[in-house]
Amino acid sequence: MKKFVEPKSVAIIGVPRSPMTIYGIVMDVLTNLVSNGYQGKIYPIHPKASEMRGLKTYPTIADTPGDIDLAVINLPRELVPGIVEECVNKGIKAITIATQGFADANDDQGKQLQREIDGITKGADARVLGPNTLGTTNAYINFSSSYWETQMEKIPVGFMCQTGAFFVSPAGLRIGKVIDLGNGSDVDFSDGLAYFEQDAETKVIGLHIEGLRDAARFVKQANQVTHKKPVIVLKTGRSEQAARAAQSHTGSLVGKDEIWDVAFKQAGVIRVGDIEELSDTIRAFNMLPLMKGRKIGIVTWSGGFGVMGIDACQRAGLEIAKPSLTTIDHLTALFPFWQDVGNPADIWPAVAVTKKASLSEVQEIAVKTLLDDPVVDGVLSIIGYFTPASEVGICQLVEETAKSYPDKPLVFSIYGPFANEAKDKLEKTGKTVAFSSPDRAIRVLGHLADYSEFRLEDHVASV
Amino acid sequence: MKKFVEPKSVAIIGVPRSPMTIYGIVMDVLTNLVSNGYQGKIYPIHPKASEMRGLKTYPTIADTPGDIDLAVINLPRELVPGIVEECVNKGIKAITIATQGFADANDDQGKQLQREIDGITKGADARVLGPNTLGTTNAYINFSSSYWETQMEKIPVGFMCQTGAFFVSPAGLRIGKVIDLGNGSDVDFSDGLAYFEQDAETKVIGLHIEGLRDAARFVKQANQVTHKKPVIVLKTGRSEQAARAAQSHTGSLVGKDEIWDVAFKQAGVIRVGDIEELSDTIRAFNMLPLMKGRKIGIVTWSGGFGVMGIDACQRAGLEIAKPSLTTIDHLTALFPFWQDVGNPADIWPAVAVTKKASLSEVQEIAVKTLLDDPVVDGVLSIIGYFTPASEVGICQLVEETAKSYPDKPLVFSIYGPFANEAKDKLEKTGKTVAFSSPDRAIRVLGHLADYSEFRLEDHVASV
Repeated sequence: MKKFVEPKSVAIIGVPRSPMTIYGIVMDVLTNLVSNGYQGKIYPIHPKASEMRGLKTYPTIADTPGDIDLAVINLPRELVPGIVEECVNKGIKAITIATQGFADANDDQGKQLQREIDGITKGADARVLGPNTLGTTNAYINFSSSYWETQMEKIPVGFMCQTGAFFVSPAGLRIGKVIDLGNGSDVDFSDGLAYFEQDAETKVIGLHIEGLRDAARFVKQANQVTHKKPVIVLKTGRSEQAARAAQSHTGSLVGKDEIWDVAFKQAGVIRVGDIEELSDTIRAFNMLPLMKGRKIGIVTWSGGFGVMGIDACQRAGLEIAKPSLTTIDHLTALFPFWQDVGNPADIWPAVAVTKKASLSEVQEIAVKTLLDDPVVDGVLSIIGYFTPASEVGICQLVEETAKSYPDKPLVFSIYGPFANEAKDKLEKTGKTVAFSSPDRAIRVLGHLADYSEFRLEDHVASV
Repeated sequence: MKKFVEPKSVAIIGVPRSPMTIYGIVMDVLTNLVSNGYQGKIYPIHPKASEMRGLKTYPTIADTPGDIDLAVINLPRELVPGIVEECVNKGIKAITIATQGFADANDDQGKQLQREIDGITKGADARVLGPNTLGTTNAYINFSSSYWETQMEKIPVGFMCQTGAFFVSPAGLRIGKVIDLGNGSDVDFSDGLAYFEQDAETKVIGLHIEGLRDAARFVKQANQVTHKKPVIVLKTGRSEQAARAAQSHTGSLVGKDEIWDVAFKQAGVIRVGDIEELSDTIRAFNMLPLMKGRKIGIVTWSGGFGVMGIDACQRAGLEIAKPSLTTIDHLTALFPFWQDVGNPADIWPAVAVTKKASLSEVQEIAVKTLLDDPVVDGVLSIIGYFTPASEVGICQLVEETAKSYPDKPLVFSIYGPFANEAKDKLEKTGKTVAFSSPDRAIRVLGHLADYSEFRLEDHVASV
C-alpha cells in the first residue's frame, strides 16, 4: 500500500496533450501534480509528445529511466490490460486504474478485461487499485492522482471510499490521505486498514463502504485497528434497490444491512448515518479529546436552544450533568436572583438583566466553571454571532480551555448572521468543532463517549 | 393579533438614552426600527429625554398624541404592572413585554407580578405577548420589536417560537413574520395560528413549541389550518430533564412526547426532529410545489452519492421511480454502451467516457428527461461545484424546469469546493432548495409528498 499512498515516483499513462477541461475547469492529473508541488519523479507517458505541462515525456513505460513506484492509467478500457502488462514488465508493483467499464459495466467484455488484468498481475506480485477510481491523495507529500483538484491538508485523517466525490471535501469533510478503492478488484478495505493502522501520520480513519468481497477479513482487520485508532464508517446501500445501484456503480456485493450493524459493533467501528454525520464525526475525532464519561454541561445564550441540547443528549445516550454546589455558587453570582441557575446555564438573563459582566465575560466564566467541575465530561456552548469580529474572544477561549482541560471536549452550536464564518474560524483553531444545531454538536460528543468506553474496556481487560 | 404583527403605531418603553451594546454590537429596538425603515408612528417613552435616535420622545404613555396599536415594554420587572396599567388606560390593546423574570423565574414575586398584569389586562380587552419575548417581526412593513438586528425578507413564511434566537435565522431559516411567544402568558400558539390562517402574506407556517397551556385548543386550531396551509413544527422538551429546563425557561408545561406525536399526526402537522430539518422543510414548502406522488428521479455526478440518495428514499418513505422506455432511450444515447442506464442516472461516465456532450448539457438533458417522465414525481440532482461560475447554467435550468414542470419539485445536493456559494445562489432563484447531503434533500421531498397526500385526502373527502 505504501507505493500507492507514498509514491516516490509515478508514471501517468493516458493524459491528453492539453489538459482536459470539463465545465470550464481544468481536470488534469499532471497539472495538479505540478501545481500541488509533488516532489517525487513524474513520468508522463505519451506516444508522440516529448513534453507535457513542462515535464519530459516518454513514449512508453519501457522507455522511462529508473524505478517507478506507481503507475496511474486512464486509457480506453480495451487498452488497459496491455498497458498493465507493460507496467508489470517494467517491475512496477502498484497500478492505479482510473478507467471505468470493468466490473461496473453491464457487458461481458468489461468482466473479460478484468479477468485479463487479474491474470497479468497475480503472478507478478503487483497490486491494482480500482478500476474506476481517482486513486490516492497524500497531503503530506503533496501527491494526488486525481484529475480533480484536491484540497491538500496535512491532517492525520486517513480515508477510504468508493466514489471520487470524496476527493473534494463533501459536507466539509477534511482529509489528509485518501484511497479511492473504486471497484476494489484487488486492493480492498482490509489492505487500506492495515496501511492506516501502521501509519504514524494517521490518527483517525474514515470509510465510505458500498460493499465488500471478503467481509470476514474486513471485520477481523477492523477489530484490530479500532483498539488503536477510531474507525468511522458510512456504509451505504441499505435497501435492496440501493444494493443494485451499488452493484452497477462499483460491482460491489452489498449484503443485508442489519448484519453490517452487528459486525461493525463487534469490531468497535463507529457507524454513522449520512455524509454530514461522517464529516462531523471525523472532524471531532481529529480535533477533540475523547470524552471520559457521559455527562454534559451546556452554556447557552438561548434557553430554547438549551432545551434542544437536552433533547439531543437523550438521543445520543448522554446525560446532563448535575453541577456541584461550587459550580452553582460561581454561576449564581452572575445571574439575576430570581433565576434558577444550573445546567444548561442560560446566560442571557445574566447579561441582559444583571449586567454585572459583559457577555463575553459571562460566556467565559460559565464555560470554564462547568469544565472545572469534576462531574462534567464535556461542554456544549450555544452562541449567537452578530458581528464578524466577535469570534476572536471565543477562539481565545478555545485555545485556553484546550490547554487547561485537555481531557474535556468543548464544542459549539452557532446561530446568527455570521454563523458560517464563525464556525470556520473556530474550527481553524484545530481544537474544536462547530455546528449550526445543538443536535449535531451533541451527536459527536456521543460518539466520543462511546469510543472512549470501548477503549476503556480494552484497558480493563489488559489489567 | 394584527396589532402585534401589523402595528401602524408603536410605543417603545424602557429604552436607554444611548443604544445598549452587547459584545460591541448595538442592540436597540429604536435603532432597528429606524434603520429597517418602519413607516408607522414611533413613540419612544423616556422620563427625561426629549429626543432619542432622532425621534421625538415622550415622558409617559399618557403624553403621546393619537392612538397607539402596540406597546413594547422592556423595564425592570417590578415596574411592568404599573406601565401595563398606563398602556391600558391609554386604550392600547396590544402589549409586548420583553422583560424576563415572571413565570420563567423561580421566586414568588415573579408569579405575583404576572398575576397583577393578568388582572389589569383581563377586563380591558388588552392582549399581552410574553413576557420574556423579543416580540414580533413583519418584513412586509419593515417592523421588528427585537433589539437584535433582524434579517428582513418579504417571504410568505410565518413563524411562532419560544426563543428569540429565531429572530436571527438559525440554521439558514428564512422568515417573513415572527411571533415570539416567550412565556405565552396570554397570546398563545392558537392565537398565532388563527392570525396566520387568515393572513394573505403567509403561505407556510413554522412553529417552535416548548409547551402549551391548552393543547386541546391548539390541536383543534391546527387541524383547521393544516387543511389550508402547511404547518411545520419543532416540538422540543422531549425528555423529562428537557421538560424541566423548558419550565424554567418559559414556564411551559411540556407533556409526554409520544402524545405530541399522535396529536400532531391527527392535526396534519408536519413534525421535524431538529432545527436544521425545520429550516430545510420550511424553505422547501416556501419554494417548491408539493410532490404529487412518492416516486423520485435522481441525476448524479457520483454513483456513490446516488446510492446514498436511494438509502435516503427508503428512510423518507419514497421510492426510486422505474423510468419509462422513452426515458431510458433518451439517456442511453448519451452513455457509454456498456453502462446500465437507469435511475439514478449516473452521468459521469457519459461525460468522461462518451464525451458526446458537455457535462452541463448531459446534466440538463438528464434532469429534463426524468422530469418529463410521467412516473417521476420529483427529481434530486447531485452535483459537484468546482468553480464559482458553474452555477449559472444550473440556475437557468432551475428557472426553466420550474416553468415547464410546475408540479414537480427539483432539489439539489451539492459537494465540491464552492458548494456553499452554489447552494446560496441556487436558493436565491426562489425555486429550489440545495443541501450538502442527498439525505437532507430527499427528506424534504418526503415531507412534500406526505403533505400532498394529506391534502389529497381532503379533496377525496369533499368529492
